[in-house]
Formats: sequence, structure tokens, C-alpha cells
Amino acid sequence: MALKSWNIQVKNANAFFDSLDDASVNREVAPGKNTILYLLGHLIAVNDGMISLFGLGERQYAYLDEAFVKNPDKSGLQMPDAATLKREWRKSNDTLSAYFDEMTADDWFTRHNSMTDQDLINDPGRNKLSVLLNRTNHLSYHLGQLMLIAGK
Amino acid sequence: MALKSWNIQVKNANAFFDSLDDASVNREVAPGKNTILYLLGHLIAVNDGMISLFGLGERQYAYLDEAFVKNPDKSGLQMPDAATLKREWRKSNDTLSAYFDEMTADDWFTRHNSMTDQDLINDPGRNKLSVLLNRTNHLSYHLGQLMLIAGK
Repeated sequence: MALKSWNIQVKNANAFFDSLDDASVNREVAPGKNTILYLLGHLIAVNDGMISLFGLGERQYAYLDEAFVKNPDKSGLQMPDAATLKREWRKSNDTLSAYFDEMTADDWFTRHNSMTDQDLINDPGRNKLSVLLNRTNHLSYHLGQLMLIAGK
Repeated sequence: MALKSWNIQVKNANAFFDSLDDASVNREVAPGKNTILYLLGHLIAVNDGMISLFGLGERQYAYLDEAFVKNPDKSGLQMPDAATLKREWRKSNDTLSAYFDEMTADDWFTRHNSMTDQDLINDPGRNKLSVLLNRTNHLSYHLGQLMLIAGK
């Protein structure tokens, strides 16, 4: 069910990004705020982080962290172009989906890699599922901002 | 865990609404978009809907639906003032918390009131927990918009 909730948000984000021509991604969600391009790279990088955090494999988009996670928009750091990021957004979600499909229900209740076994004993709710719920909210949060562009 | 995720978003929203003086709630989250006042009433009304949907009791804020759910902002319909809505936001969350505290883990996997027993058999994931996850995303979505005002 948490995965279904995640997939719905990804689908909504897909619909938004697909509706944009490449030039539009340089627009800000509100005057002086993040550009669509920045949020696109930000979401790819943050979501991709679940791969290593869950010990599923090697992250694919660590190279986006500098410009899209560690630094704010308009940092002057180089960013991939719109067409590239839109393509990678799709690809990154396909990759995550494939990993998530392999996980059992029990896997979601195990600890993630920035925790110790003791951390999980102290707080059993702090597990992979909690990270997915958190990332889903994070996606919804930025989707709300992006949808301002779409007139919602 | 889904409740924890919900509570985190409510806490974040509290922090935002508490930071505002009453005059600021008339600001739009972006030019031409919803005002903070509208989103505040919208969130109270939508979240309050879970009380009747889950069969927990009688909704407290059905009177907000007309101005804040069924109609867009700037409809000309009368709206309570900022101080009232900020107070009711707090109160509505206290009420929801008290109801949620009474629910057992199993309760979350039962059907809600806009479904039949057969609906739940056809799609067991369509239950109260799925509604809570959906409302959590909805809150995050609008919180992302509100936080534009706070410079995030």
C-alpha cells in the first residue's frame, strides 16, 4: 500500500513532466523560487538515494547530488539539459520500480544503511518503509510546487 | 508508521501556520494562486472528512466544504477569519489524533464508508490506511506550496 501511494505520486509527476516542453523547465515554480529543472534533478537524486540506503545496489545518480541536493538552485554548477533529465527521471523510476519489485514485505521492516541494528531495536518504526513514506511525502511536497505552473 | 508520517506532516504544518501573523494568511502562495487562508480551511475540511469516512463519529467542519473544498479560492463565499481558522486547525488535529489513537492496527485495514464489502474484497489495499496515506500526501502537496511563502 505504501508502494501504491509512492507509485501514484510518481505517476502524477510523470504526467506533469511529460506535459512540459524542454524550454519550459527553466521556469521558476514561483518568482525567485526553484526552477522546474532544479526540482527535476533534485527528485531524481533524492529518490535514487534509496538504492544505496536500502542496500539494493549502486546508486546511478550520485553525480547529481552536488548541483541538485547539496547546493540550491542557481548555484552556477553545471546541470544536465532538460531532455536528458526528463529521460533520466523516467529511467530512474524504472530502476527503482525493478528494485522495489524484488523486495519482500518483510524487507520493508528491516533497517536501512544509515542505521545500526541497535537503532532499529530502539525505534522499530525507523526502517525502510518509513524512508519510502518520507520520500513519498517529499515528492508530493515538490509536486505541489510544480503544479502551480500547471495552474493547480 | 503511516500515522507517524502523518504526524510529522501535521507538525510541519503547525510550525508554518504558527509562524504567521493573522494578516499574512491573506497572502497568495504564488501570484494568482491560492491564499494561505484558503489552503488552511481546505486542509481542515479535507482532513476532517476522515472522521465520517472512517465511521469514527460526526465531522466537525462540514460547514467549511462549500467555501474551501467544493469551490476554489476567491469564490466570494464567506470564510472564517484567520485567527478562527488557525485555532480550528489545531483543534481539528487534536480531534483526529484522539480518534486515531483509539483505532487498532487491524482497523486500518478495514473498508471505509464510501466502499462496499465487495470493493474491499476486490481491492484489499483500498482501505482506511490507504486514505490516510493519500491525505498525508495531500497535506505534503499543499505544504510544499505554503513553504514557498516561508522561503523554502
